[in-house]
Amino acid sequence: MIKSFHPPLRTLMGPGPSDVHPRVLAAMARPTIGHLDPAFIGMMDEIKQLLQYALRTDNPLTMPVSAPGSAGMEACFVNLVEPGDKVIVCQNGVFGGRMKENVERFGGVALMVEDVWGTAVSVDKVRALMEQHDDIKILAFVHAETSTGVCSDAQALCRLARDYGCLTVVDAVTSLGGIQLEVDQWGIDALYSGTQKCLSAPPGISPVTFSERALSKVGKRTNRIPSWFLDKTLVMGYWGEGQQRAYHHTAPVNALYGLHEALVMLQEEGIENAWQRHALHHQALRDGLEAMGLKMSVAADIRLPQLNSVSIPEGVREAEVRGHLLDAYGLEIGAGLGALAGKVWRIGLMGTSCTRRHVMLCLDALENTLIEQGADVASGRAAVAAAAVYAGAK
Amino acid sequence: MIKSFHPPLRTLMGPGPSDVHPRVLAAMARPTIGHLDPAFIGMMDEIKQLLQYALRTDNPLTMPVSAPGSAGMEACFVNLVEPGDKVIVCQNGVFGGRMKENVERFGGVALMVEDVWGTAVSVDKVRALMEQHDDIKILAFVHAETSTGVCSDAQALCRLARDYGCLTVVDAVTSLGGIQLEVDQWGIDALYSGTQKCLSAPPGISPVTFSERALSKVGKRTNRIPSWFLDKTLVMGYWGEGQQRAYHHTAPVNALYGLHEALVMLQEEGIENAWQRHALHHQALRDGLEAMGLKMSVAADIRLPQLNSVSIPEGVREAEVRGHLLDAYGLEIGAGLGALAGKVWRIGLMGTSCTRRHVMLCLDALENTLIEQGADVASGRAAVAAAAVYAGAK
Repeated sequence: MIKSFHPPLRTLMGPGPSDVHPRVLAAMARPTIGHLDPAFIGMMDEIKQLLQYALRTDNPLTMPVSAPGSAGMEACFVNLVEPGDKVIVCQNGVFGGRMKENVERFGGVALMVEDVWGTAVSVDKVRALMEQHDDIKILAFVHAETSTGVCSDAQALCRLARDYGCLTVVDAVTSLGGIQLEVDQWGIDALYSGTQKCLSAPPGISPVTFSERALSKVGKRTNRIPSWFLDKTLVMGYWGEGQQRAYHHTAPVNALYGLHEALVMLQEEGIENAWQRHALHHQALRDGLEAMGLKMSVAADIRLPQLNSVSIPEGVREAEVRGHLLDAYGLEIGAGLGALAGKVWRIGLMGTSCTRRHVMLCLDALENTLIEQGADVASGRAAVAAAAVYAGAK
Repeated sequence: MIKSFHPPLRTLMGPGPSDVHPRVLAAMARPTIGHLDPAFIGMMDEIKQLLQYALRTDNPLTMPVSAPGSAGMEACFVNLVEPGDKVIVCQNGVFGGRMKENVERFGGVALMVEDVWGTAVSVDKVRALMEQHDDIKILAFVHAETSTGVCSDAQALCRLARDYGCLTVVDAVTSLGGIQLEVDQWGIDALYSGTQKCLSAPPGISPVTFSERALSKVGKRTNRIPSWFLDKTLVMGYWGEGQQRAYHHTAPVNALYGLHEALVMLQEEGIENAWQRHALHHQALRDGLEAMGLKMSVAADIRLPQLNSVSIPEGVREAEVRGHLLDAYGLEIGAGLGALAGKVWRIGLMGTSCTRRHVMLCLDALENTLIEQGADVASGRAAVAAAAVYAGAK
């Protein structure tokens, strides 16, 4: 007989999920009600408003897809890409590659702009490719690359796309709530995000937003969208305006309770305050890591505060370090992915996991673990350096 | 400022979601851990085992899709249907129509077998169509039609499909946990279900299982599966065997805690005992409704115990009745869908909502509401009739 599952106590400082606040966990446990209950419809409207606030957009099509970020990505591409469409896909980490897969599976032609993992998307390369082709339909890129910790210049890329008359699809899974993100001001056309990064709700839901321009392209399609579940023209019958909602699918009621509560907390803090909080704790973590003798692997001007890639010193048995952090401290940090496997750790400071407590725990645990392994790191300096940042911020 | 959401207290006796047990709600609120945490991987293995138990199958590809039942449906069709494939789709309610949409969006040719809403799929009509075509690849049907309350003969349909050398795709959203369902014994090839019906976990997850025959068809595809998120050949890298799981998408951690607990409870009760419980309370509800003077709208031999379609008496203002039940009793029952809108109510007795308390509350609330509206129903007889069933069952 299999028994009830009780998770071990963890502190989540990997690439997501981040720690979920007790307020959000409590919301998840509220009694399930019907997905067509008038009270639930009212809560859906609030989620839309809260997402519009967090994404800085007035787009009427702003809603959570009832599935993880990967499905949010698919929702953008399956609706917008028609067979034969040329799509520029920027790849500077894992998730650009996944975008390419999406474009090709829906019959599009992916024109790749490749940059070294750990660097930003080159706006110049994108411009050069747009000059070569006069029929690019979509520019797709990742704002905050979760696999490397790099921020690309979403504003410049969106301006470029407008100049050349194409739509943008932006992966904002890790950026939403952690760094500035301006859907309307930057002119983003389609965007998907996740709940388990800087919003700190449990994973499983993907906020998306489509501009009028994006909806117009969907409306002009001459062939059917190769998905029923993700067809935005159908989903909006359920998530649209008014009390008469057409049943499309059964919404994940309790997961939406959790997202609602996480968004209420973000609204209480204020989105700009949240961005500042991520910047502050990032500085403290960075100064602490550098005082220890470790090196940030991403250049300072393109670093994500919420996802810190740290170069693994030579000779360190990195999987052992992560295993020890998990076993002895209950602390999860992320391994490198793909080209960066074994070369970096990814330390998340996302949402509820972005506090002074998290920074100090991580510095202390990492320092002691590395010293136990005989690595060449300075002892006792990290905490002092981080504390100095907090003192200066007062 | 938008405030925290506190749902009203409801008793859920519609077509799903059903009431979620406090044990499952408590599981939903356990701290989120990483989707690659060894403890989480261990829990995933337990979910697979528990689903194999509930579905009566040894299929290694048995897992929960990280999205609602509609996505589980899509997972079956997007993997199995290749362009040009002929698929027999049986339609005797809303969900057969959705299957047709799926087949066509993935390039298949849907050959429809239509039966009147409220009747079962005709095995003879399916056989006749198989006789006419020698290249049918798949037979798709709904085991328990949630829109009408009808049970079709899954065993006979699967046997027929085997005789004619085609695969089966079975919608078991409402059947799993409520009535007999035998994946291996009946030879079902691909099946999807939902969590929010007779399993009584919150909505948002869709258990699926694929037989070796189904996997073999997927493996022989010559074109790419038009979905990345639902591509079973990729998902199984994460849900497959061993501790080295490839990251595919971030699993909905807390939703899976909830499903795990619901499946543990089903295992504790025993699946056959759960079927018997649904049969017993259905009898009590039926006898109560009939004693009141109401009529079941589905023939006795094809009625689903877990979803009771009741004919609405002439002159009754049915939306008012449902509104009054919700406002005065906190009781949700379902409206008719599609062709049955305004003609039937759908009263669910699913999972945690399938108890004597639910039956008695529903009979009492419905009787009083109808009498207040001046409808011609017998007073005081329903509870007596239901109680007699329970007395006889002892």
